[in-house]
Amino acid sequence: DFPRTLDQRVYHLGLRAGEVANRIITVGSPSRAGSIASFLDAEPKPFRITSERGFLTITGRYKGVPVSICSIGMGHPNMDFFVREVRECLSGDMIVVRLGSCGCLLDHPVGTIVVPKACVAVSRNYDYDFGIGNSPEPPYRISKPIAAGFQQPDALSRVLSDVVNASADSFYSSQGRQTSFPDHNQDLIPTLLSSIPGLATLEVCRLSLPNHRLLILPWTTI
Amino acid sequence: DFPRTLDQRVYHLGLRAGEVANRIITVGSPSRAGSIASFLDAEPKPFRITSERGFLTITGRYKGVPVSICSIGMGHPNMDFFVREVRECLSGDMIVVRLGSCGCLLDHPVGTIVVPKACVAVSRNYDYDFGIGNSPEPPYRISKPIAAGFQQPDALSRVLSDVVNASADSFYSSQGRQTSFPDHNQDLIPTLLSSIPGLATLEVCRLSLPNHRLLILPWTTI
Repeated sequence: DFPRTLDQRVYHLGLRAGEVANRIITVGSPSRAGSIASFLDAEPKPFRITSERGFLTITGRYKGVPVSICSIGMGHPNMDFFVREVRECLSGDMIVVRLGSCGCLLDHPVGTIVVPKACVAVSRNYDYDFGIGNSPEPPYRISKPIAAGFQQPDALSRVLSDVVNASADSFYSSQGRQTSFPDHNQDLIPTLLSSIPGLATLEVCRLSLPNHRLLILPWTTI
Repeated sequence: DFPRTLDQRVYHLGLRAGEVANRIITVGSPSRAGSIASFLDAEPKPFRITSERGFLTITGRYKGVPVSICSIGMGHPNMDFFVREVRECLSGDMIVVRLGSCGCLLDHPVGTIVVPKACVAVSRNYDYDFGIGNSPEPPYRISKPIAAGFQQPDALSRVLSDVVNASADSFYSSQGRQTSFPDHNQDLIPTLLSSIPGLATLEVCRLSLPNHRLLILPWTTI
């Protein structure tokens, strides 16, 4: 009884069985999806659909192997829509790689590809009083690390592995940026670095679902 | 030092000063934005821009008063991008109304407009072991209610006010839907109803920022 439209499409991705492959690359913007899709085989002509909610799926073949490229925007609710709805359009194993940019907390050059061994979630604590700035609660919650559960690559060049990624629920407050809002996040980055062994990167698009491991490949931009 | 492109646009909304009005209506899909924009004055012709990240802004006038309609997708990270970046493109007061559909936990007809007096956040607890399903932690965190802080309407018909809204970080797990994932959310809706006095509605697009009150107007769909 998964929610579907009358023509059997899942609500937000707008897909139905047969339109998405078991091997999927997700990105955050349609232009990135288009760039990656340019590597697909010319024949058969890739299938392309944009949902009412702005999710873009391009399904084709790469050297004969079916693959989908999905643009799903930013943030973990969008990732949640994606993982759950695409699961309902597929049978068998599902392999998802998320490609996205990230901030780097250590000294690595822009363009480094990162394959984290674990991820923590950084979430704004809504029970903290951000107006007064003086609560018994911490302003941000940092989850325990969740292990990646897959083999780390060791033969690729310019790959940063054996590190921990932090995934935030805000590009601004939960990533320690100082803006005009009372975010009480001045100490967040030092706290993350001192409390999470191996932490190297920070981004905004993770989702942790047990039994469904997701390989997030951030690349460093700052 | 707010992050901007070389031509002074904020990164994700793709806007700069002068392109967005202080009165804003936000919705979750471009087609809803277009429907609302059809009520704008024909002259001057409304300005329209879609960002690289899929945010759509339409700025025009309604009976001579400048207003913007912004399609910002779903989920609180998107709302966070919107509120913070639009704030950096404006001077003075900013009035934001969020229009969106919601589930109704009480017996009210589809199409009812809801103006909540308060909102709670329902967030997945990443420290709960969803695989084993047996942790000392609760699987979902329910925040304290955050009061709306504005006058409740009492003269409109078919408006449900004096109720509390719950805003979830997932359309599926944190709203109690049963899918193929081990979400341990069977008791979530009864727990919400028994623990939050006045709770009536459930949706996925809130953001709580102190000093920046946001009026969320969900309408009931289920």
